[in-house]
Amino acid sequence: MTKTVTAYAAFERGGPVRPWSYEQRDARPHDVRFEVMYCGVCHTDLHSIGPWGRSYPLVPGHEMVGRVIETGPAVTGFGEGDLVAVGPVVDSCRECPPCQAGLETMCLTVATSAYDAEDRHGDGITRGGFAETVICDERFVYAVPGGLDPAAVAPLLCAGSTVYAPLKQWDAGPGKTVGIVGIGGLGHLGVKMARALGSHVVAFTTSAAKADDALALGAHEVVISSDPEQMADQSNRFDLLLDTVPAVHPMTPLVQALATGGTLCSVGMPDTFDVAPFALVLGRKSIAGAGAGGTAENREMLEFCVRHGITADIELIGRKDINTALDRLAANDVKYRFVIDLTA
Amino acid sequence: MTKTVTAYAAFERGGPVRPWSYEQRDARPHDVRFEVMYCGVCHTDLHSIGPWGRSYPLVPGHEMVGRVIETGPAVTGFGEGDLVAVGPVVDSCRECPPCQAGLETMCLTVATSAYDAEDRHGDGITRGGFAETVICDERFVYAVPGGLDPAAVAPLLCAGSTVYAPLKQWDAGPGKTVGIVGIGGLGHLGVKMARALGSHVVAFTTSAAKADDALALGAHEVVISSDPEQMADQSNRFDLLLDTVPAVHPMTPLVQALATGGTLCSVGMPDTFDVAPFALVLGRKSIAGAGAGGTAENREMLEFCVRHGITADIELIGRKDINTALDRLAANDVKYRFVIDLTA
Repeated sequence: MTKTVTAYAAFERGGPVRPWSYEQRDARPHDVRFEVMYCGVCHTDLHSIGPWGRSYPLVPGHEMVGRVIETGPAVTGFGEGDLVAVGPVVDSCRECPPCQAGLETMCLTVATSAYDAEDRHGDGITRGGFAETVICDERFVYAVPGGLDPAAVAPLLCAGSTVYAPLKQWDAGPGKTVGIVGIGGLGHLGVKMARALGSHVVAFTTSAAKADDALALGAHEVVISSDPEQMADQSNRFDLLLDTVPAVHPMTPLVQALATGGTLCSVGMPDTFDVAPFALVLGRKSIAGAGAGGTAENREMLEFCVRHGITADIELIGRKDINTALDRLAANDVKYRFVIDLTA
Repeated sequence: MTKTVTAYAAFERGGPVRPWSYEQRDARPHDVRFEVMYCGVCHTDLHSIGPWGRSYPLVPGHEMVGRVIETGPAVTGFGEGDLVAVGPVVDSCRECPPCQAGLETMCLTVATSAYDAEDRHGDGITRGGFAETVICDERFVYAVPGGLDPAAVAPLLCAGSTVYAPLKQWDAGPGKTVGIVGIGGLGHLGVKMARALGSHVVAFTTSAAKADDALALGAHEVVISSDPEQMADQSNRFDLLLDTVPAVHPMTPLVQALATGGTLCSVGMPDTFDVAPFALVLGRKSIAGAGAGGTAENREMLEFCVRHGITADIELIGRKDINTALDRLAANDVKYRFVIDLTA
């Protein structure tokens, strides 16, 4: 039986979210339905309500933690009452090489997003975690490990995953010098994770006011990236720069800060890369792009976070504050992630 | 004692080359002086005579093969009469990590170019291989292996090195699908080398007229990169794309042709990378830059070329034809490399 669900939806491009009820599908054999307790507010939600949106009403939210209330007959991994989490991807083809390697976010047929995407089995449009309940195939559901604040776990599913996957991919660890560029929702987790992985961690921020915070998060050093002298001192130093800045920004000074053979991985998705090709040639350097990790990486990431006591630094807000939070997020005014408390 | 040398020099930015005599330095302890027999004409020579030039008269040429006529007292590796080669780098700091790893082209103090660069020991400006003789520290001199046409070896020192080094760096070999983009001076050697390394090789060219030639060079397949349908068929296929195109060109379709985690390495040094960051994010892909390899890689490359019988396809020209060759090179009218015969 379908279930009538109250959610918070944008009714038009760029509009505010307002309560909306919709019919959530009946559980398919492998489905897990859970009551959403906490849902993070990601920069992608702003883009999705705005320029990227396809069909309205649009229910955002892809950093969800909740408690299982129903399982399909074939579900083996979860039972009623389990604390679970779901991230930005809720389905994929499962047959292409990336899917078979547990890298479903890179599915060659394009993975199904948690919201505003077409369901692969004809059940309409996917709806996100700004809602009372969410339903999702168990392959894309994660057990939330004990010992961590569930509200602060929610942002790990997108922000955390998006920094953990490239840190691992490009071998952050002991003996490596890693820079985290931009200390926001993604960057603050990047600093914590790179530090816990054993790297020497340098935080790059344009804002001198964030220097103390970056050190408190675990950075060994802070560089004010708007200061050309400080940037010049970084040259040929970094094995990896994880660049979380979503706006177009000068990348040539960052590439110059890479050591020979180093990689600048951009996870912020600016519209263009503002970089001089010559800077890459001089040290056989690379610019990469990455998004959230696949299910295998996410399970590993959650275990890693338990081992190191890592969660996001959050501002917990009520349902009535969602629009204010979206406005403040657009103005970069959050430390470091808004999470909606849906338990109240 | 200095030696009066006749060379071919540009006397002004963008000007033609004309005969010019200059005093070549006395041999320093580790110097090797050789009579230039053959010198390739590289696209960089055009840039260097033109926009990049610093001091005139400017003697271009950095793909040299010749015979040793003098050695400094400390030279151990070469003797009079040896057939030798020199490429685009003739000195470096020798102390930084890249130098110590034999990657002198990436010297952190910037390697000394074969011409139009300041000598590190106060002996003025370096002068290239469009000349009767050249002098160079033995660290940057290569023995030319027997069994290869010396004239066709000359372009290996820059064009060959610039494609061999990234093919090795990004693991071209059996089981890998490698695309070579642009079938010119660099690309034709890229096809030969990638094939000899055991990769499945696909040549990308805008010119249908080059398809048969590309197959003859060793490509297993040819893709006409200006045909959107053919490009769409390549998606998620390539472990490595070696992009030799020197002009700004659409790179997003190429990135889409990369397999998950694949690398597009640009060795053509366009002014900007015309690429949508999103295309990299979707498959955790990279864009890299690379130039000619270091001394360790070049020695390895020359051995590899002997083993596989690889040299450049050249048009051998006389001294009087240098300016015509430069004009034809600017118009992309060469198959695939001009080499000046200085023996006549």
